[in-house]
Amino acid sequence: VPDDRETLTAALETALRRAHVVVTTGGLGPTSDDITRKILASVLKRQLILREDLLAALTERYRRLGRNPPPTLQSQALIPFGADLIDNALGSAPGLRLRVDQERVLYALPGVPHEMERMAERFVLPDIAGIAPARRLRERILRTVGVPENRLEEIVAPLAPREVGLAYLPHLGRVDLRFTAEGREEEADALLEETVGRARSALGSCVYAEGSEELEEAVGRLLLGRGWQLAVSESLTGGAVGSRVVAVPGASRYFLGDIVAYDNAAKIAVLGVPAAWIRDHGAVSAPVAEAMAHGARERFGADVAVSTTGIAGPDGGTTEKPVGLVYLGIAWPGGRVALRHQFPGQRAQVIERSVTGALDLVRRAVSGHPIPSSP
Amino acid sequence: VPDDRETLTAALETALRRAHVVVTTGGLGPTSDDITRKILASVLKRQLILREDLLAALTERYRRLGRNPPPTLQSQALIPFGADLIDNALGSAPGLRLRVDQERVLYALPGVPHEMERMAERFVLPDIAGIAPARRLRERILRTVGVPENRLEEIVAPLAPREVGLAYLPHLGRVDLRFTAEGREEEADALLEETVGRARSALGSCVYAEGSEELEEAVGRLLLGRGWQLAVSESLTGGAVGSRVVAVPGASRYFLGDIVAYDNAAKIAVLGVPAAWIRDHGAVSAPVAEAMAHGARERFGADVAVSTTGIAGPDGGTTEKPVGLVYLGIAWPGGRVALRHQFPGQRAQVIERSVTGALDLVRRAVSGHPIPSSP
Repeated sequence: VPDDRETLTAALETALRRAHVVVTTGGLGPTSDDITRKILASVLKRQLILREDLLAALTERYRRLGRNPPPTLQSQALIPFGADLIDNALGSAPGLRLRVDQERVLYALPGVPHEMERMAERFVLPDIAGIAPARRLRERILRTVGVPENRLEEIVAPLAPREVGLAYLPHLGRVDLRFTAEGREEEADALLEETVGRARSALGSCVYAEGSEELEEAVGRLLLGRGWQLAVSESLTGGAVGSRVVAVPGASRYFLGDIVAYDNAAKIAVLGVPAAWIRDHGAVSAPVAEAMAHGARERFGADVAVSTTGIAGPDGGTTEKPVGLVYLGIAWPGGRVALRHQFPGQRAQVIERSVTGALDLVRRAVSGHPIPSSP
Repeated sequence: VPDDRETLTAALETALRRAHVVVTTGGLGPTSDDITRKILASVLKRQLILREDLLAALTERYRRLGRNPPPTLQSQALIPFGADLIDNALGSAPGLRLRVDQERVLYALPGVPHEMERMAERFVLPDIAGIAPARRLRERILRTVGVPENRLEEIVAPLAPREVGLAYLPHLGRVDLRFTAEGREEEADALLEETVGRARSALGSCVYAEGSEELEEAVGRLLLGRGWQLAVSESLTGGAVGSRVVAVPGASRYFLGDIVAYDNAAKIAVLGVPAAWIRDHGAVSAPVAEAMAHGARERFGADVAVSTTGIAGPDGGTTEKPVGLVYLGIAWPGGRVALRHQFPGQRAQVIERSVTGALDLVRRAVSGHPIPSSP
């Protein structure tokens, strides 16, 4: 819906006619195209009230960041009568919760994605759950890495009873399995518990987490549990493995650092890869991947180190070494090894699959799972 | 819409009643919950045809990746009669284009986000543009970095005539300005050309691109133009600056490498930051940021190097050095300097703003724009 009075009014009226819960995003900022508050007041026939407490809080926020409040700030504190404010921990504009009548409720959230997502997760979804009917869909998620969707279905589908819904949610190099059951909460939960348990046993070490834990979070948890320190060296991924590792709060407890040797001279000078190996095998090769992992492990004094080298494309591929060819290396107290992959997709997908593969190698080394041979 | 026959049927019927163009995403994969093709055939009263050419192509794709085709593959080649296939360069399931009747068209796209996005951009949007009415909204985008939304409005709003729509699309540390005009194409374009030109002059060096060019693409273009090589060193961003640089195809022409020294010992041993500076000023300080940039420039033999050090949170903040405090350093033939920032937001936002700030510093150094003092 564009920031246009007429269209926005029509959209809100339609939504309120059709649904008990309406959520809007965007249009709560301080600029003149931010008209959501005004239109809401007009559609719901409420007055706009200047909330002095909010104006003070907004002003204080600017002061704290060492900036002058903009002259338009007051418009952000004009709120439809009767609205509750939803705290915005990540930005300036609070969200609004409006009880329309006995049956209907409207939430107005900011449009900045991370602000909106946090507000939805922390406030709106629990709030809706509180008013929704008791009969609910229960779900459990198993997160897997390195096994294709159709192979997972062959393993899992025969184990799930008819009453359990099963969905395959593919990501790059990872697939989430979603098990769902409806009905009385305890019965649905028991059914899911049994099914998920059987699936876990059958799937083995490709399951890296249950629920919403990310692969990099699982890796961090395992490193902490074992008291190991991690180092990384990267070529085609350019720092993406390291940046995923530090996305997890507290990563400084197990992450030492990362050397991105994009250039061949840097692989030799900064990482200590023997020049002869690059000459004889090429920079994209198993020996160089191994040497990169070894070099990072030595230079940072880490327990385990992982490396990536490959051809991300779109250029640089040859018949012998096509775009998507990637070697991932790992060096840990158990030895060192490099795996060869031929990843499908374009540059961003090849990089993303390489990052996932590298994190999975660390996970396997740290948990003592078998390191698979090159697929 | 869940993967459920009844709900999906109702949703499609409603959509086809209301719109001339309907787009679906998801449900085209090989597993048993992929029912979109079947439901489309039933709603549109078409037979499902086994497309032997598609089956052969899908089989060949698996062979090329060195995998066995799954037994369920045939289901992916069952296509509603009369559908055109939309090529999927990034995955196995092609999209479908169905002429419903003289007036209506339906596109079925895969659910994997990057496959869907590419198909939408390359095929669906141009195809819709071909059938849409001639009176169109014209738009121009100016992309800015480092200036808050309300300050941009103060500069730009007075320059835009009433007939030009103006929207502020904020990202972390960046704001896109969207100028729109309706009406006859040439007139709208001329009006936009004049307005955008005036805005560019008034905004100066905070404009890094027009249209869809990303900041990292602009940086790459400028480095190539000047023949400069880039190196990076990172602490709190953990490799995120490097990974943004290599997201651009051809980055190997100007990117040498990146040293992520997350641990203080690594800052000293791998980057050559003087231990006394870390002791006296702390790792999060202007001298250390400068020394990190200098160390990366020396070690990689680069023309320009940028560095990041800061406190991403949620832990590690103090009264003197709170979460969000970040120093960005730059070393280039013109000198070296570090800027102090106090970024709002949580861990992911502090990291993202630091990456944007670092890329902008490189942009300014390479283009000879003034390096601003600490805001």
